[in-house]
Amino acid sequence: MSARVHKLINQPENILSDMLDGFCAAYGDIARLTDEGLVIRTTPKDPGKVALVIGCGSGHEPAMIGWVGPGLFDVNIAGEIFTAPGPERILQGIKAADRGAGVLVCVSHHAGDLLNAEMALELCELEGLSNVDMVLLYDDISSAPKGREPERRGTAGLFFVWKMLGAFCEGDNDLAAAKALAEKVRDSTRSLAMSLSSCASPVTGQVMFEMPEDEMEIGMGLHGEMGMGRQKALGARETIDLMLPPILEDLPFQAGDEVLVLLNNSGSMTLMELFILYKRVAEKLADAGISVYKSWIGPYATTQEMAGFALSLCRVDDQLKALWDAPANGAYMKQL
Amino acid sequence: MSARVHKLINQPENILSDMLDGFCAAYGDIARLTDEGLVIRTTPKDPGKVALVIGCGSGHEPAMIGWVGPGLFDVNIAGEIFTAPGPERILQGIKAADRGAGVLVCVSHHAGDLLNAEMALELCELEGLSNVDMVLLYDDISSAPKGREPERRGTAGLFFVWKMLGAFCEGDNDLAAAKALAEKVRDSTRSLAMSLSSCASPVTGQVMFEMPEDEMEIGMGLHGEMGMGRQKALGARETIDLMLPPILEDLPFQAGDEVLVLLNNSGSMTLMELFILYKRVAEKLADAGISVYKSWIGPYATTQEMAGFALSLCRVDDQLKALWDAPANGAYMKQL
Repeated sequence: MSARVHKLINQPENILSDMLDGFCAAYGDIARLTDEGLVIRTTPKDPGKVALVIGCGSGHEPAMIGWVGPGLFDVNIAGEIFTAPGPERILQGIKAADRGAGVLVCVSHHAGDLLNAEMALELCELEGLSNVDMVLLYDDISSAPKGREPERRGTAGLFFVWKMLGAFCEGDNDLAAAKALAEKVRDSTRSLAMSLSSCASPVTGQVMFEMPEDEMEIGMGLHGEMGMGRQKALGARETIDLMLPPILEDLPFQAGDEVLVLLNNSGSMTLMELFILYKRVAEKLADAGISVYKSWIGPYATTQEMAGFALSLCRVDDQLKALWDAPANGAYMKQL
Repeated sequence: MSARVHKLINQPENILSDMLDGFCAAYGDIARLTDEGLVIRTTPKDPGKVALVIGCGSGHEPAMIGWVGPGLFDVNIAGEIFTAPGPERILQGIKAADRGAGVLVCVSHHAGDLLNAEMALELCELEGLSNVDMVLLYDDISSAPKGREPERRGTAGLFFVWKMLGAFCEGDNDLAAAKALAEKVRDSTRSLAMSLSSCASPVTGQVMFEMPEDEMEIGMGLHGEMGMGRQKALGARETIDLMLPPILEDLPFQAGDEVLVLLNNSGSMTLMELFILYKRVAEKLADAGISVYKSWIGPYATTQEMAGFALSLCRVDDQLKALWDAPANGAYMKQL
């Protein structure tokens, strides 16, 4: 399948503002757009809670605008398509989020996101904003070998972090505890993605990469970053049998573990396929003596119309299960 | 964009059973699979409530397996890909749903779905099951002219019916009242779809239709049924300006009305595009003096990886707003 070059947009230079206007018009009861172009909770948290901020490139919707709301993020600073927001905008987001009990800036590890967040924290220092910290998050086992985890990219497995950290920060916790919780979830999470087709940039109309119809690539990043190489496209069972073992070995996940599972749709996978893939995941985990606490299957972080998915596992204990089950009400993340 | 012929499945003949196994493995706390292959609520409703049943072809996920659960359907009888289930299976579904207070079989109007539901109701009569009825639902203005509404197809606007009818049947209501409520929502709902690309059958690998990259079609049905013809692909604003007026004129929706809005993703549209489209919908409705109560934007009834969307409006009063806001907990429909 080739990419879809014609997108239903207006002027390419207005994609971000048009999208944010439309999103906040549709979900105004949950999120609103500030004059600075920040997406913030319509009903802010009470003072005295740690505030959560995330900046990231757009084009991955519902990430992360759909995750602003009670039990989730306080502020999302949406960058242009596939482009991290700059330090001044992140600083605006930190100021908008601050409720007097510290601000944690969450960074899904990509070079641009990390650099801009670090610069934003320097700006905070210059301005005398002291109770601000950042946490670097990563989960993609294909992007650096075991032992070099901090070099890995952030991908869909970070939704485990977002959900639990959001719930944690609704409680009476401080900034250091929030950061430690985020790191605990990160260090319990591993992901691996695959792709069957490319996508086109809505800004330039350029196809991101070329992919023959009968091939697939394991380990591709959220922006088409190179993975572990191409091979003949397989069926559902064989694909999971290829992808699950390296995930299990990496943490490692072991017999007796309890896990959460996420199958993230990169864009144009069908839910039909994802359910078929999930069946095999469940079978293989049962074979390995690993029990599944809960699962999510759907589009969490997309890459435009790319066909592909990421498989993420997170090992949970009682604390993490309670945080997972805690209520949340983002436009695209609802937990009853 | 061409269709994606390679799907991540196992044997084509096992698509339905593999998918249902995977779905129920992932969401076993909400829905379970019976020995007969029915998807039913894990926690059944109390006796004394009207039961809701829907049979429909698969390939449109999350419709309708994702809508089984509290506040929604009691039983979904999933047919093969794009194929309505037969009367014997619908009869099984009716029996599984029956809690002693009547069963309403919901039919999204397509020839096969209607025929099989009618035959199932005849089987009920033969078996002496008396408190069973069906309701025929349709919303697509492109499939028959005004004045011949019952000839129209059922499309994504019926999610308004499913949500409100599900909430209604959680209350203390009888079968006739449930049917009347479904008809009230149906008669307040209008939809129009558009498509930018085709899709492939996962069973045969056949592409459903051919669509040049620079064209679009207005009015296409959920299975690629012919619409109002092809034209040059437009931008977001122009597309809404073309699609919204005939929807408004058809009911008609008028100044002072309050409406719900649904933008349904046919498969591989990006949420980015749908938010941009929604911005224009909101602007044009405001211009027309029509206020939006709430909106949904996302994949509700898909057609595999087809790129396109449907725009649906439903005029609401206080009763319908309360039913809309009532809690629901399907795997793919959560209302807090």
